Amino acid sequence: MRILFVADVIGSPGRRTLTQLLRLVKKDVNADVVVANGENSAGGFGITPEIVREFRETGVDVITTGNHVWDKKEILPLLKTEPRLLRPHNYPPGNPGRGSVVIEAAGRRLAVLNLQGRTFMSPIDDPFRAVDGLLAELKDEADVFVVEFHAEATSEKQAFARYLDGRVAAVVGTHTHVQTADERILPKGTARITDLGMTGGMDGIIGMKWELSVERQLTLTRGERLQPADGDLTLQGAVVEVDAGTGLARSIERVNVPYERVLQGEFRKK
Amino acid sequence: MRILFVADVIGSPGRRTLTQLLRLVKKDVNADVVVANGENSAGGFGITPEIVREFRETGVDVITTGNHVWDKKEILPLLKTEPRLLRPHNYPPGNPGRGSVVIEAAGRRLAVLNLQGRTFMSPIDDPFRAVDGLLAELKDEADVFVVEFHAEATSEKQAFARYLDGRVAAVVGTHTHVQTADERILPKGTARITDLGMTGGMDGIIGMKWELSVERQLTLTRGERLQPADGDLTLQGAVVEVDAGTGLARSIERVNVPYERVLQGEFRKK
Amino acid sequence: MRILFVADVIGSPGRRTLTQLLRLVKKDVNADVVVANGENSAGGFGITPEIVREFRETGVDVITTGNHVWDKKEILPLLKTEPRLLRPHNYPPGNPGRGSVVIEAAGRRLAVLNLQGRTFMSPIDDPFRAVDGLLAELKDEADVFVVEFHAEATSEKQAFARYLDGRVAAVVGTHTHVQTADERILPKGTARITDLGMTGGMDGIIGMKWELSVERQLTLTRGERLQPADGDLTLQGAVVEVDAGTGLARSIERVNVPYERVLQGEFRKK
Amino acid sequence: MRILFVADVIGSPGRRTLTQLLRLVKKDVNADVVVANGENSAGGFGITPEIVREFRETGVDVITTGNHVWDKKEILPLLKTEPRLLRPHNYPPGNPGRGSVVIEAAGRRLAVLNLQGRTFMSPIDDPFRAVDGLLAELKDEADVFVVEFHAEATSEKQAFARYLDGRVAAVVGTHTHVQTADERILPKGTARITDLGMTGGMDGIIGMKWELSVERQLTLTRGERLQPADGDLTLQGAVVEVDAGTGLARSIERVNVPYERVLQGEFRKK
Ligand SMILES: [Fe+2]
Ligand SMILES: [Fe+2]
Ligand SMILES: [Fe+2]
Ligand SMILES: [Fe+2]
Ligand SMILES: [Fe+2]
Ligand SMILES: [Fe+2]
Ligand SMILES: [Fe+2]
Ligand SMILES: [Fe+2]
Repeated sequence: MRILFVADVIGSPGRRTLTQLLRLVKKDVNADVVVANGENSAGGFGITPEIVREFRETGVDVITTGNHVWDKKEILPLLKTEPRLLRPHNYPPGNPGRGSVVIEAAGRRLAVLNLQGRTFMSPIDDPFRAVDGLLAELKDEADVFVVEFHAEATSEKQAFARYLDGRVAAVVGTHTHVQTADERILPKGTARITDLGMTGGMDGIIGMKWELSVERQLTLTRGERLQPADGDLTLQGAVVEVDAGTGLARSIERVNVPYERVLQGEFRKK
Repeated sequence: MRILFVADVIGSPGRRTLTQLLRLVKKDVNADVVVANGENSAGGFGITPEIVREFRETGVDVITTGNHVWDKKEILPLLKTEPRLLRPHNYPPGNPGRGSVVIEAAGRRLAVLNLQGRTFMSPIDDPFRAVDGLLAELKDEADVFVVEFHAEATSEKQAFARYLDGRVAAVVGTHTHVQTADERILPKGTARITDLGMTGGMDGIIGMKWELSVERQLTLTRGERLQPADGDLTLQGAVVEVDAGTGLARSIERVNVPYERVLQGEFRKK
Repeated sequence: MRILFVADVIGSPGRRTLTQLLRLVKKDVNADVVVANGENSAGGFGITPEIVREFRETGVDVITTGNHVWDKKEILPLLKTEPRLLRPHNYPPGNPGRGSVVIEAAGRRLAVLNLQGRTFMSPIDDPFRAVDGLLAELKDEADVFVVEFHAEATSEKQAFARYLDGRVAAVVGTHTHVQTADERILPKGTARITDLGMTGGMDGIIGMKWELSVERQLTLTRGERLQPADGDLTLQGAVVEVDAGTGLARSIERVNVPYERVLQGEFRKK
Repeated sequence: MRILFVADVIGSPGRRTLTQLLRLVKKDVNADVVVANGENSAGGFGITPEIVREFRETGVDVITTGNHVWDKKEILPLLKTEPRLLRPHNYPPGNPGRGSVVIEAAGRRLAVLNLQGRTFMSPIDDPFRAVDGLLAELKDEADVFVVEFHAEATSEKQAFARYLDGRVAAVVGTHTHVQTADERILPKGTARITDLGMTGGMDGIIGMKWELSVERQLTLTRGERLQPADGDLTLQGAVVEVDAGTGLARSIERVNVPYERVLQGEFRKK
């Protein structure tokens, strides 16, 4: 089974990139299933029911999110009713939504888990114990398990992957919007990458227009609302090949597809 | 002029990696000068005078550091007397040491600047205004300027590089110990990479043994002192080619050299 | 000279408290001048031009603020034109407004300074060096200097007061909305209190309705917007008596006046 | 039943203050039982078995702690064996020690609970759900419950007290080392104070010598180790009177006893 993970889709430029490239990329990497992070898809902050529909129609099988999932209030009802729209599992009780889903993929039952870190972030429930509980709960309901860990600190992200080594097929990181070059198979068979990167305008600052972002660094006050960057559109993420027998990873490869290159017919040339 | 930046050297495994590989790598990438970050070279925390000597003998021209430079008290006197040992320039007055040095390299005067970010870190002086001041001060003393920015948040690091675009040859990030795959030449000619990665044992958690690091995530108390990881030794960083005429970048390429691969004679095979 | 400092006025309940009690309290404590913090006066978040007028008409001579001053965009123009409306001085250049003003009070020139801390807050400019600069600048323009320091950490607040001991008449803290019982005259003559408290509904959580505030602690997501508490209205702050000759403090006394008690004619009974 | 809570005892000056004053104060406030926080009793950082003995001999019935309890490794074994030495209950599993104890006091069974907040602190387990669990567990084992909540943010501390209103006799805060003037009985009968203050040298910065503390604010590097302040020794805390029938509070009064005043025979004069 081959799983394509798509990094945080940023605003309408990110959605345009996804719409234009997803089918091509999916075919090119020969993926059976697509997991995409949508927490920044609505203008950079949150996601809406309309966008969830759009993601699904574009070919996204499971939508993961992170801390920004709560930004748009209109998504809250859908979190309760749409099983393929996840929010980090380890937010405390009292919040709507779920952090896992089991779907059919390549004839197997695939569990997608979404958790969030705490270092430099909100002190939600311990993701380590939370993932233990979730895996125990889903033990008999799926054959293959993959985890998206939405977190800031590299230490927490690498520790989380190592903690799960041998128990899940992959631990892929999101939230920093910068792809890391540390993809690897850990000793017991789990694929990991610290961050998938982002999908949208690469000419900005982590997906947002650079001028306002720099100004905010200079003034340390909010100023105008950040806007998604729209130049150098790129789809990023990773593709993981899972051994259906062991449920562990055979390979992990980074995905980084500039739209420009596709237009020029030089798709995926390194 | 070609500059090799070496990512944070972690403990004795990192130093061993540096000693074994630096000359090979320097030759292979055809570098004229080497800048290496030493803030974690003493057992993972700080640097000592002895290690500074070792770095210099190994072929490091300028040693940069970061927040951990203050960990070992015995380095403080050397910060005042050794111009090639830098600490982040924007620590407030009252701290020993300097954040820049000008050296001869490939027949040009090369200024190496070392600054540190503030997001999720100590609230030291604004690195944006600080680098403006430092560049103004050094304007007539160097031909080529490169900056190492030691910071946590991807937004601050990318904003800092963009702020300096067209004014320096390169802005390379350190501190997260995970190499990012976002090296590029910005529109006005500055090379940037959000993080160079690390030099040392890649089988750990950002360079430290994984068992203790995971345990600390679980208990949230200090426990035993973290120890440098020593498996899968690797030298990471980046090499930047500078146009001597414009003082801007022609290219930036990531460096990622596992010691194992060198032993097997497969050096730098991708 | 006797100066009445009024703690953060929270929303319309706080403004009602101020309107009803200020003249009474001012008379009771025999104050010559009133300094009040207005950063939370507009629904708990920010301040508006209309409210600035209201404060002035109620008898507030100088309005101080803090991190929330930027919340309402409509105040930005007034920050440039109204000298008696301050924002923390040590926000970086590029932000509108000023952090000090000199007014006439009891026949002397009184300088009111407003600065902000950094621990657990935004990493704005160093308040220690900033206050040195500001005091040097105002040296010949005022006879008496008082400082409101808007900060979170008790260590930073007490250190700031001690740093200024003997150089200003008073250092009063704001931001935590809980009055501290540590008012004292420091060895060289500066009055200090770590926090003045708040003005508004004391039956809430630091001035906001307790139900939503507790819910936010439980869910760690934003939920509904917090609303100012409106029960047990109280005016808090401190009154400092300054020796006009030395410019230092003779006394500091906490102020804590429940509206209820005033209605019952038991004003300021302990 | 009358319970005397003693605020964080800081270093040897704090211990000296405790030794000299506790019996006097206990008698003066007519307390049946003494709960004292010892997390800073060993040079400002942590506590040792020797000091635990000293506290017990001095008349402390239960020793509470906070984030600094882990500073001295030699205390870890005692955390497992001494039931009257508590550490915050909501540290994650895998840490030694307990966060509650039930003792006999004034003929009743008194449960003392120790929890810790998370805002601006380590992201340990949710204290709200943790205290619910602990109270359920102890329901039939005690008649009166009191809680020490070791936390930084005033919002979290006041919310925690309000959350427990009507369920425990008192929620007293520690950790900021500055006594707050907000002691009160909440609507359903729980006494609360946001912070008890500290016991030790009041001429410092939250109990530590002011010169080094200010210097650290200026340099933002560690410098020399902070030392406990030793001037103006004072014992702070609060005394809560509990109605043995309802298990709720009848009164709460702050305690603030300078040693100097005791020597002059002016004990507890306001
Ligand atoms: Fe994101
Ligand atoms: Fe995020
Ligand atoms: Fe480092
Ligand atoms: Fe670092
Ligand atoms: Fe406020
Ligand atoms: Fe504030
Ligand atoms: Fe403490
Ligand atoms: Fe503490």
